[in-house]
Amino acid sequence: MTQWNQQARDRAARLEAARPYARGKYVAAADTVALLQAVLRPGDRLCLEGDNQKQADFLARALVQVDPEKVHDLHIVQSGITLPEHLELFEAGIARKLDFCYSGPQGGAIARALEKGRVEVGAIHTYPELFARYFIDLTPKVALIVARQADRQGNLYMGPNTEDTSTIVEATAFKDGIVVAQVNEVVDTLPRVDLVADQVDFIVESPEPFYIEPLFTRDPASITETQILMGMMAIKGIYAPYGVRTLNHGVGFPTAAIELLLPTYGERLGLKGKIVTHWMLNPHPTLIPAVESGWVRQVFSPGAEVGMDDYVSARPDVFFVGHDGSQRSNRMLAHNAGLYACDMFIGSTLQMDLEGNSSTVRTDRIAGFGGAPNLGSDARGRRHPSDSWLKAGREQAGTDGRMPRGRKLVVQIVETFGEKQAPTFVEQLDSVALARKLKLDLPPIMVYGDDVTHIVTEEGIANLLMCRDLDEREQAIRGVAGYTEVGRGRDPKAVEALRQRGVIRRPQDLDINPLDATRQMLAARSIKDLVTWSGGLYAPPARFRNW
Amino acid sequence: MTQWNQQARDRAARLEAARPYARGKYVAAADTVALLQAVLRPGDRLCLEGDNQKQADFLARALVQVDPEKVHDLHIVQSGITLPEHLELFEAGIARKLDFCYSGPQGGAIARALEKGRVEVGAIHTYPELFARYFIDLTPKVALIVARQADRQGNLYMGPNTEDTSTIVEATAFKDGIVVAQVNEVVDTLPRVDLVADQVDFIVESPEPFYIEPLFTRDPASITETQILMGMMAIKGIYAPYGVRTLNHGVGFPTAAIELLLPTYGERLGLKGKIVTHWMLNPHPTLIPAVESGWVRQVFSPGAEVGMDDYVSARPDVFFVGHDGSQRSNRMLAHNAGLYACDMFIGSTLQMDLEGNSSTVRTDRIAGFGGAPNLGSDARGRRHPSDSWLKAGREQAGTDGRMPRGRKLVVQIVETFGEKQAPTFVEQLDSVALARKLKLDLPPIMVYGDDVTHIVTEEGIANLLMCRDLDEREQAIRGVAGYTEVGRGRDPKAVEALRQRGVIRRPQDLDINPLDATRQMLAARSIKDLVTWSGGLYAPPARFRNW
Repeated sequence: MTQWNQQARDRAARLEAARPYARGKYVAAADTVALLQAVLRPGDRLCLEGDNQKQADFLARALVQVDPEKVHDLHIVQSGITLPEHLELFEAGIARKLDFCYSGPQGGAIARALEKGRVEVGAIHTYPELFARYFIDLTPKVALIVARQADRQGNLYMGPNTEDTSTIVEATAFKDGIVVAQVNEVVDTLPRVDLVADQVDFIVESPEPFYIEPLFTRDPASITETQILMGMMAIKGIYAPYGVRTLNHGVGFPTAAIELLLPTYGERLGLKGKIVTHWMLNPHPTLIPAVESGWVRQVFSPGAEVGMDDYVSARPDVFFVGHDGSQRSNRMLAHNAGLYACDMFIGSTLQMDLEGNSSTVRTDRIAGFGGAPNLGSDARGRRHPSDSWLKAGREQAGTDGRMPRGRKLVVQIVETFGEKQAPTFVEQLDSVALARKLKLDLPPIMVYGDDVTHIVTEEGIANLLMCRDLDEREQAIRGVAGYTEVGRGRDPKAVEALRQRGVIRRPQDLDINPLDATRQMLAARSIKDLVTWSGGLYAPPARFRNW
Repeated sequence: MTQWNQQARDRAARLEAARPYARGKYVAAADTVALLQAVLRPGDRLCLEGDNQKQADFLARALVQVDPEKVHDLHIVQSGITLPEHLELFEAGIARKLDFCYSGPQGGAIARALEKGRVEVGAIHTYPELFARYFIDLTPKVALIVARQADRQGNLYMGPNTEDTSTIVEATAFKDGIVVAQVNEVVDTLPRVDLVADQVDFIVESPEPFYIEPLFTRDPASITETQILMGMMAIKGIYAPYGVRTLNHGVGFPTAAIELLLPTYGERLGLKGKIVTHWMLNPHPTLIPAVESGWVRQVFSPGAEVGMDDYVSARPDVFFVGHDGSQRSNRMLAHNAGLYACDMFIGSTLQMDLEGNSSTVRTDRIAGFGGAPNLGSDARGRRHPSDSWLKAGREQAGTDGRMPRGRKLVVQIVETFGEKQAPTFVEQLDSVALARKLKLDLPPIMVYGDDVTHIVTEEGIANLLMCRDLDEREQAIRGVAGYTEVGRGRDPKAVEALRQRGVIRRPQDLDINPLDATRQMLAARSIKDLVTWSGGLYAPPARFRNW
């Protein structure tokens, strides 16, 4: 007779094996390695919570200490590969297969581990895609999560850093998996309950508070005049004519520049209240002047940002805040909101080819995609109209008489030359060569050219919606690619024709004088300015303080 | 000086106004109307929980009794408009604006209310789209929700029927909104906590258990031989060659037929274990034989299904089940899983035009779209490969040398003539005329032709991926449109050429003899058969019992 509860029996056996190391749900920090050896089995699918912000770092340090004879060939399924320990798991043979979304600082290490055959990459996902697979074909057997506090019953408090946790736990706990949480402290009463005790099996009080990366902090002092020029073009050439009210900004200096130009340049253009009222965004410190100036009506966030907790708590009309007064974040819900309820995504990339395909993956650095593939794609299932969405749809539809449809704006804002003077525009993406070398099914593309509507560089704006074929698209891209080889390879007549049609627009076409693009235009020119704007509520991490 | 906590102050004022009607969080059923009048203000955005399954019906009956002098012009934002009371709100002037997803039985009433100018429709959304807007520009001020049980602290238990609730409450409670819950009973100890007390402001014990619509129950006795033939073609002509393992089935008899053909016809074709292993699906009773025969490895569900609770609880290896033994559902997470982690969506429609655009909206019936626009669209942000997804991508890419990309299968399975012999295939959708009449920005389209990959009718399968232009697509559609006017208007030579290329395939091209398509092929031929397959665990609602 078929057993229909093998997962529950397996779970019970693991809980029994873990019993010597726990009192109720509570495990002493010193027993963590033993606990993990008791609850893990070779080949398990494991989520070791680590996204682009908070890290279950104590559990990560414990996991690398398990005996690879006992625990090996784990299949890691988690949004971020960001700590050195995440890679050590593969070096030690504890883990073998990897499905992930983002790897900031570990991009180089992943490339090297791939090269050496130490890691087998399933796919580089975008956040909601990996979360989707948690419920279909990549359900974690064990989740190692992180919270700020636990109470004596085992309820957890995450405060501003809910991020991925509720989604991970929903998939794991309701499929007879095992959930282990590290917490900064155990208290009598939680400010609020973010995760109920019933869904948590074990709790470890870690010796040190968990690590959070201030990923979305950009120092205004590092914003260049080129980036300011690009920001002015974006505001006047895209935000204004489309009337973009709902949006997401990627991480990067050009979008930080835009945030800081709203209260100055945006104000001068009379755009306040007409654009950028509703956001899906982490609490970027560079958004503070726009919030304080009344530009921003509402912000929902995938995560928190280090130093912004008090500021967000003091602005509950703008941010999502619980009855305890601290922020609520949720990466899954925020990225769904970015996909379906935002009229625009604007972000940067490392490389872009002649069709507009872009990628942050290079042969020596597998940086991952994070939210960009999701946010930077048109939601084909969207049905609610907005002026921006309808206008973009009309531009794309052209005159071919098909059923009318709206369109999301997907804007890539890049300088023609990036870090170390590497050209942003290339004939072929590095990821194509990488795919060939690693025999991947498809080259890892962050945003496909078909999904991009506009490219902004210091040379101008290219409107890809208005390009009637791939040849026009290529010339539109070359036409804003500056002095890169791709840019120099343009057909000057074709580019001029595109400019006449308004497909390409230069600063002067927008009546923007590049000489006006000075740092005086920024509402804040330093981290300290941001602190001042916040009325002292923003508490930047030490590395951003130079006073 | 700017007030940054106006929403919190407004909330506090409403809670204070409600105090006379509540003891702590608890409100007597008789005081419900007074409570609602105390917490609601004219123009409020309100979610009166009602999806395609469970209904906050007691609160709906209370809401229609509020004084329209005091509470009027509400903006209703909820996934389902399904109870008569939902429309009465508009007739009485209590509500004015409506943003929704689905209206089964009330489709005709919505059309009439629109006609009379009683309701102003914002948009017809797909589920995750409306949920997205809850966090961006349609955040509810008040949510009236429904749960099975509350405990004395105010925690809620929803059991199998979590559905939309956690998403609605996350948006409302964390933006200083007010959450009122109706529960069937108040108990000392909940089987599990699905929603924490902190997020619930008021609880009313309703005199009767809440209503749930058995929307996903299809009686096998009503499946026709035509539907069985279509099901055989779908399995042999699509599921098998693409090796579809992850999928969602829409609601309807053709897909119910497919579910019942797996253990018989599918078994004979040797497909067990090769297809349909992982599902995003409500617990369809017609899936029971496939589950019992070992075809189904895992199912994650947007909601529960009436009568299926005990069966699901007894099959925890397949379904998502909590430690208390009852199912966990979540419409938001399930529809994200359907979008990003499923290789195929297959469903039906009422009308389809010559480009393959389809809609369930008619001039006299605004039926809503439910999950179809989301599930029936290609996730452009998806990056993980599967054999099915890559094969569909290759077929679409053709030979134009662009960057390769995968593709979701979106299949429409329809009989050429629908209810009352109305043709399914039409020159122009009713929704186009409706949009003109109501001056809508766009015609309400359920699934756009661009997103459809295959159409299955009793005449054959049309593969739209392989059509090189709109003319070919039109002939491919005409070529499977049977004796409808659209079908009779085909160009026989063009259709024959498409058949030679495999774009159109007839039953005989698939080596299927229509005479084999008999009801003997179904693994269950009645509701009673399903009960037997389930070992008596499935308890069908009374209206489906004829014994």
